[in-house]
Amino acid sequence: MVEVAGRVDRIPIIAVDAMGGDIGPGVVVPGAVDAVREEGGFTLVLYGDEPAIHAALAGLDTADLPITVHACGQAIDMGEPPAAAIRNKPDSSIVRAITDHKAGAVDGFVSAGSTGAIVAASLIILGRLAAVDRPAIASRIPTVSGDCLLLDIGANVQCTPQHLLTFAQMGDVYAREMLGLEAPRVALLNNGEEETKGTEVMVAAHRLLRASDLHFVGNVEGRRLMHGDADVVVTDGFTGNVALKLIEGMAPFLQGVAERRVSPEERAVVLPALRILQARLDYADYGGALLLGIAGVSVIAHGASSRRAVRNAVLAGARLAGRDIPGRLGARLAAGA
Amino acid sequence: MVEVAGRVDRIPIIAVDAMGGDIGPGVVVPGAVDAVREEGGFTLVLYGDEPAIHAALAGLDTADLPITVHACGQAIDMGEPPAAAIRNKPDSSIVRAITDHKAGAVDGFVSAGSTGAIVAASLIILGRLAAVDRPAIASRIPTVSGDCLLLDIGANVQCTPQHLLTFAQMGDVYAREMLGLEAPRVALLNNGEEETKGTEVMVAAHRLLRASDLHFVGNVEGRRLMHGDADVVVTDGFTGNVALKLIEGMAPFLQGVAERRVSPEERAVVLPALRILQARLDYADYGGALLLGIAGVSVIAHGASSRRAVRNAVLAGARLAGRDIPGRLGARLAAGA
Repeated sequence: MVEVAGRVDRIPIIAVDAMGGDIGPGVVVPGAVDAVREEGGFTLVLYGDEPAIHAALAGLDTADLPITVHACGQAIDMGEPPAAAIRNKPDSSIVRAITDHKAGAVDGFVSAGSTGAIVAASLIILGRLAAVDRPAIASRIPTVSGDCLLLDIGANVQCTPQHLLTFAQMGDVYAREMLGLEAPRVALLNNGEEETKGTEVMVAAHRLLRASDLHFVGNVEGRRLMHGDADVVVTDGFTGNVALKLIEGMAPFLQGVAERRVSPEERAVVLPALRILQARLDYADYGGALLLGIAGVSVIAHGASSRRAVRNAVLAGARLAGRDIPGRLGARLAAGA
Repeated sequence: MVEVAGRVDRIPIIAVDAMGGDIGPGVVVPGAVDAVREEGGFTLVLYGDEPAIHAALAGLDTADLPITVHACGQAIDMGEPPAAAIRNKPDSSIVRAITDHKAGAVDGFVSAGSTGAIVAASLIILGRLAAVDRPAIASRIPTVSGDCLLLDIGANVQCTPQHLLTFAQMGDVYAREMLGLEAPRVALLNNGEEETKGTEVMVAAHRLLRASDLHFVGNVEGRRLMHGDADVVVTDGFTGNVALKLIEGMAPFLQGVAERRVSPEERAVVLPALRILQARLDYADYGGALLLGIAGVSVIAHGASSRRAVRNAVLAGARLAGRDIPGRLGARLAAGA
């Protein structure tokens, strides 16, 4: 039996790192409060510098909301080497909150802090699910018909075919449980549609996926990644990171083109359209990235998260905890192994 | 001394594979004729099925233009395994034209046919430049300030750090000679800006690039790839292919969003803007991809090339031949080795 922190038989308690993000408590606290006020169904614990959190809470009218504050004396900066930061800052919001998650005091963790520190602390403190050699970071990306889940987007720059199969199985469970899909379409990001395409690892991964009980729809090329052909797209963390960031860069690129490469008359046509399109491309809607394969719930919001992005990441954490996604992942992978 | 086919001391003669592309002579021939009529400065030889070429030429009023036809009895299809196709079809337009290039009868080759067949035939018949272990395919991609050269986009799915250095040196020569840049900014596509980021190959490539005499500006992430931070961006052919195709997929993605994810009122705002933006994203402007590192000029136009895309690819071939880019590349690499 896989032991998972915070197995939920109560209203989930979600730990939020108030110190994360480029702006910190000033954005994270209002975003987290929005989540608990507008959707509810969970209890919020804010980890971080107590005076800063209370200052951010002031004026938000939170008297009737299930919110508590857990004071921490340290914070991990975005640029700190993760392993050293975790070792040297036991009283940081990230380490405290994840330690509480491990102990079962909270059921999920959400942070807009350093991805490296969140991943390292989650791995070291919560540990991996029994059947998972390498956890992966998953993110939803926009498509013409909605969105799909892309993983890995950066936890593992080098992967074996077996790692990629595990990522696919984790994405499949996520898509079934969180998106309500009966037979999620799984694809492999590759440089061609034919099964012989790609590196040796990709060719072997294609074979493993083809032989699995997943609904594998084959390779998907970059050109079709955002065209809604798949619900789960699997790749190594290097390629996935480049692809995700290219997609994130689309809106600023289009904005830059509108500002620098069109005439004033054309700009008047383009700018209102970009506002409409950007609302469909905004990662704030996607609830942060998820660390799948650890024995707990760890949601990584973008460092540049807006209040709305934090809100959605906290809600994603509450839903993952409420549906016990780590437990379901563990059971699925143990059965498949 | 590196022996390069078609070293130019005359008006360049450009061989065009009339059978290439999804549509063939009906698009390729008018596009090539446009190039020689509107810009000139080179002689055009059309390789392929003679009746089909003459049918396509009919009505184009080419009597005064320097155009000849080289009849070929075979054509290589897009899906054919490249090595077998080259072996079994010696009278195909691709094999005939590249063989004539090797013999010095023409100075450059342009095709919208099978990339695999063009690369294989170029490698086998023309051969590599002396200092080049692996030729690379380079393509211009749009940025907020113009464009940059991305390579490799598919010739080598796995690369060593030394391969990536050679790609950078070739991109540097291209940017100096063809774009007129004095000190082209060279970057490495990676999953983070820090020099420790990426796979072992990328970390080692970063070190080689840093130690080279190139104007290396460091790693570029996907988010900044299209932001004009570099003139030449180096990557392996797997990552480059995914990235290029993602960029090519942007315009159809936006079109799909406009058709499927916005209201009719919003669509009326978005569609005119997309027409403006797509004109800045259109790969037809970029003159096809270039196979750099072979002893000759080989330009690979997109299979879905429009007449204008073929025109620009033919002009790119004429300029590469006219400036003797293979010879300059060979000299630069021999000096640097």
